[in-house]
Amino acid sequence: MVEINGERLLADLRTLRAMGATGTGVVRPAFSEMDMRARHWLAARYQEAGLAAQIDGVGNVMGRSPNPGPALLLGSHSDTQPTGGWLDGALGVIYALEVVRALAEDPATKDQAVDAISWQDEESRFYGCLGSRSFCGDFSAEAEAGLADKDGVAFSDALAQAGLANVPRLRATDHDYIGFLEAHIEQGPHLEADGLRIGIVDTIVGLGGMVFSFTGQQNHAGTTMMAGRKDAATALYALAHAINEEFPKVAGARSVWTMGRAVLRPGAPSIVPGSAELELQYRDADSAVLDKFEAVAHRLVAEVNSRGGAAVEAKPSRVRIAPAHMDQGFQKHLSQAAALHSGGNWTSMPSGAFHDAGVVCKVMPCAMLFIPSIGGVSHDFAEDSHDADIILGCQVLATGAASILAAAAN
Amino acid sequence: MVEINGERLLADLRTLRAMGATGTGVVRPAFSEMDMRARHWLAARYQEAGLAAQIDGVGNVMGRSPNPGPALLLGSHSDTQPTGGWLDGALGVIYALEVVRALAEDPATKDQAVDAISWQDEESRFYGCLGSRSFCGDFSAEAEAGLADKDGVAFSDALAQAGLANVPRLRATDHDYIGFLEAHIEQGPHLEADGLRIGIVDTIVGLGGMVFSFTGQQNHAGTTMMAGRKDAATALYALAHAINEEFPKVAGARSVWTMGRAVLRPGAPSIVPGSAELELQYRDADSAVLDKFEAVAHRLVAEVNSRGGAAVEAKPSRVRIAPAHMDQGFQKHLSQAAALHSGGNWTSMPSGAFHDAGVVCKVMPCAMLFIPSIGGVSHDFAEDSHDADIILGCQVLATGAASILAAAAN
Repeated sequence: MVEINGERLLADLRTLRAMGATGTGVVRPAFSEMDMRARHWLAARYQEAGLAAQIDGVGNVMGRSPNPGPALLLGSHSDTQPTGGWLDGALGVIYALEVVRALAEDPATKDQAVDAISWQDEESRFYGCLGSRSFCGDFSAEAEAGLADKDGVAFSDALAQAGLANVPRLRATDHDYIGFLEAHIEQGPHLEADGLRIGIVDTIVGLGGMVFSFTGQQNHAGTTMMAGRKDAATALYALAHAINEEFPKVAGARSVWTMGRAVLRPGAPSIVPGSAELELQYRDADSAVLDKFEAVAHRLVAEVNSRGGAAVEAKPSRVRIAPAHMDQGFQKHLSQAAALHSGGNWTSMPSGAFHDAGVVCKVMPCAMLFIPSIGGVSHDFAEDSHDADIILGCQVLATGAASILAAAAN
Repeated sequence: MVEINGERLLADLRTLRAMGATGTGVVRPAFSEMDMRARHWLAARYQEAGLAAQIDGVGNVMGRSPNPGPALLLGSHSDTQPTGGWLDGALGVIYALEVVRALAEDPATKDQAVDAISWQDEESRFYGCLGSRSFCGDFSAEAEAGLADKDGVAFSDALAQAGLANVPRLRATDHDYIGFLEAHIEQGPHLEADGLRIGIVDTIVGLGGMVFSFTGQQNHAGTTMMAGRKDAATALYALAHAINEEFPKVAGARSVWTMGRAVLRPGAPSIVPGSAELELQYRDADSAVLDKFEAVAHRLVAEVNSRGGAAVEAKPSRVRIAPAHMDQGFQKHLSQAAALHSGGNWTSMPSGAFHDAGVVCKVMPCAMLFIPSIGGVSHDFAEDSHDADIILGCQVLATGAASILAAAAN
């Protein structure tokens, strides 16, 4: 059976960590100097592993196997949040590199076509999952026109700076693929809390969002009687509280919703706010639950409007992301590998966070595996996982990949 | 009977408006170049009117009558909000100047002692009602030590810049006063809405405030299940909504409360907020109502804490301002003058906004009169009042002052 080299894996993860290391965390946003340095380093590593490496026109790093036949693609993303953890997507990127090497070293698998990828900008500096979207034909000219990051840096300038202005972009349709496997840290507390070491993802949950805009009348908080007020804050508190009271009645067991952004204007203690904004986000593995949340939110908006204070208007805050179902066959291969190597300490689970596999599964079969996050922490300098779990996850991916390749060859 | 000169009054108001004029508004914050220019101009006007003028060590402009006996003090403040209206306190300052002139021109009142004042920094650039507090012995060395405005400018530097570093400060105890009369725009919609032209203030409402600090657990909005969350925003919405539901049950007819400041941290739509802050302010003319609001708020805080999500802690956001009762005798004199000149279109009313008279009434009898604000607007460039109302208000103040002086002389 294929065997990965745990020390080699950890050594490469630590080398990558050093590019952008800040305390225990990593600062390596897409297209930053550190990000591009890491991508060129990765391309060289792919070459050493026997792959033909290239950085495409949006920064994806592809390592192409010289072996014939449809390829199994492995990888994740090596860009980080503005203040990111050291593992996150980097884990899956180095897993792919190590699995390529391990398969090439095993006589039983050395002739199989396994490609490795590091997607660009999964973390939304310019556009969430930009690299995998570009690859899948889901990054339109309209989306690209005028695109800039939150500091106003133009995407076209970032590309030029990275030396990618006229470099061709890879497309999924240019090549034959068996499918895509992505490994990632869990970014949640469930595996650790349940004493489990591997999660095999069944669904990447869907996500919807609404932004509520409140329009009232700004007034002096001392001289404006309650009856005459149109207080945008009062309407916001009422709607937000009603959502928290009503959503549980239609929620699924693993539904989540969050109202983490609320802004009052002008936001002074002695001024009745004239306007306000509240943002709601909800996630579930079942589209029908997302539909119910949307319907309840609209009903509650109508109720707040019927009270005659500040008016509220609801708009989608983003395009709805449908739940993404992982390939059943791939899940079976990965689950068998997980059961084998973890001594049964694995589970099938949804992913509450979004991933590149949620994009790629629109064009080819996909599957994902998770390893435990210590304390459930991610997107934070404190993010970490145990070395033993890191090594185990890579071995599960290697065994699972070999199993998928063997099945595809028959 | 004493007669004011309406044209002279309007001319002086417009001259003062030009100092800091910005569009239809005025930008003349305390100790700014325009504020000090206006104060020196006012001192010169006091001299012309026969008063001995001085600018004291905190910027108060005092015009002292040469006539013997206890003085009736008239005035308001000439500093403005950062983006202020042209009347606000300037109205009462120029009223005082005009009434001094009118009384001096009338043989029946020319020998009476009437002083005029423009208080400094009523609008809280450094410290709310700083000038009148200093005058009343309510501006302590502790309050002054390290005092700075919101841009970090030190109060001591502002004083030095204004040439006031070593200038003596006036105190109410240095002189005998009959009392203090302040005229102001209403800053609310009631007079206009009711077709009235003069308001005689019975009480300046009291004011209390609380700040609620929420401590939860910051988490990923996709991977943290609802049951495991300690969401600071959820607790904030629940408490704010409960306050809006419960306060009406203990409120008086003219109680107001406002939660105009709410901050979630980090404030991103896909992060469960780990902490939050909410500020509550409440006002009423009756201290017992303020006590009830405070008790209800504490009860609701305990209820939110009993739910086991994010924890909330309540603290006073400011020192409670007790309701300030205007002198009954002064109110009677002003009411008779209002009835006479307004054809009965006047009312007795509380002031929902705070004023220097609310400070000064702790050391001498005070009264206030209001004229209508067009549309109830104040602290805004659009603030305005009708010329006829401006002239009427000054005449009421002159007649009322003469009546108070005549009574004091007997």
